[in-house]
Amino acid sequence: MSKLRFSITMSLDGYVAGPSQSLKDPLGVGGEALHDWVVELAAFKEAHGQKGGVVTASSPIFQEMFQNVGAEIMGRGMFGGGPGAWTPDWKGWWGEAPPFHMPVFVLTHHARDPLPMRGGTTFHFVTDGIESALSEARRAAAGKDVLIGGGAKTIQQFLAAGLVDEVNVSVVPLLLGGGERLFANLGDPAPRFEQTRVVEAPGVVHLRYRVAQR
Amino acid sequence: MSKLRFSITMSLDGYVAGPSQSLKDPLGVGGEALHDWVVELAAFKEAHGQKGGVVTASSPIFQEMFQNVGAEIMGRGMFGGGPGAWTPDWKGWWGEAPPFHMPVFVLTHHARDPLPMRGGTTFHFVTDGIESALSEARRAAAGKDVLIGGGAKTIQQFLAAGLVDEVNVSVVPLLLGGGERLFANLGDPAPRFEQTRVVEAPGVVHLRYRVAQR
Repeated sequence: MSKLRFSITMSLDGYVAGPSQSLKDPLGVGGEALHDWVVELAAFKEAHGQKGGVVTASSPIFQEMFQNVGAEIMGRGMFGGGPGAWTPDWKGWWGEAPPFHMPVFVLTHHARDPLPMRGGTTFHFVTDGIESALSEARRAAAGKDVLIGGGAKTIQQFLAAGLVDEVNVSVVPLLLGGGERLFANLGDPAPRFEQTRVVEAPGVVHLRYRVAQR
Repeated sequence: MSKLRFSITMSLDGYVAGPSQSLKDPLGVGGEALHDWVVELAAFKEAHGQKGGVVTASSPIFQEMFQNVGAEIMGRGMFGGGPGAWTPDWKGWWGEAPPFHMPVFVLTHHARDPLPMRGGTTFHFVTDGIESALSEARRAAAGKDVLIGGGAKTIQQFLAAGLVDEVNVSVVPLLLGGGERLFANLGDPAPRFEQTRVVEAPGVVHLRYRVAQR
């Protein structure tokens, strides 16, 4: 069955970005180190047109993140170029050939025509909320999974609405001391998670949970 | 070498007690479920004079928590009977024969004579801060490890002071949505952790870290 899921890296103290996010520090002060475990992987480098890298217990975790995914949803913050009305020449952080290769649905308050890019990515802009974005993404995914790319606020909205099926959290031994918390604003009662898999890898542990349906 | 270490259970959203702690809910609303994984263990039941229970991948984790430990340190909140001056008949939450069987050093602002209990536990009351408590506990431990029992504020003080050698965090798939956070108030720069072991067990994952010395 088609699942709605996300995969994100969190510091041991619960943050997915450090304090004082800015254009210079999009992941906040110290936040870039969250992704040390992934950027060194051969699979990551290959996906970004680079050579080299290592193979670790994290490699299959990185690869399955995109396996059987037919569409992605992201927040306006992750797509960038905001806040506010669109500057037409803003086409995301990823250049002319973004690494998604699938339809991507961007949650925004500002309507915009779809933006086809090279390599199979088309950005669609959804202005009427998360359920509408999910229903469009599911249709585009045609039976495959839908991935929530981020950021934290987008993930929180889907969790609080009880729409997420599977959660992948990669916990790294960083203490960022502030920034953007992942598990906050989850509603009352909060979603109930069931631990389904743990993978130990160098400098990170990958935790997978199934979300119990209400 | 003698280590200063602690072992504590944390919800996936970072809390070691739920919201609204009270005498009725000492672990806050929903917080008791943090310890579901441990109270069902045969080793836990045996340590508390009960029969039955199960053996899981958590059993050795529970047992090694107390292996080679010669003294324990805890905060006044964990010992109870406060805040404020002592009521002489308060001897902790654990009855006449507490399950520590070793010297226990209680951090407090209120002096009190040592309190010998049945079964080898003696409570000592330390009024001049964490470094003094640690030095007394190390002497009493005579080469064995010193365990910080809790609570979170006591652990935070030792972490911020750079005194902790090893951290054991058991993460359960609960979202408490509020309460007492474990990793907060850790100073700047925060301690640097290195992941040294991961153990997957039913309904919990046990994470161990070494703290890098500054």
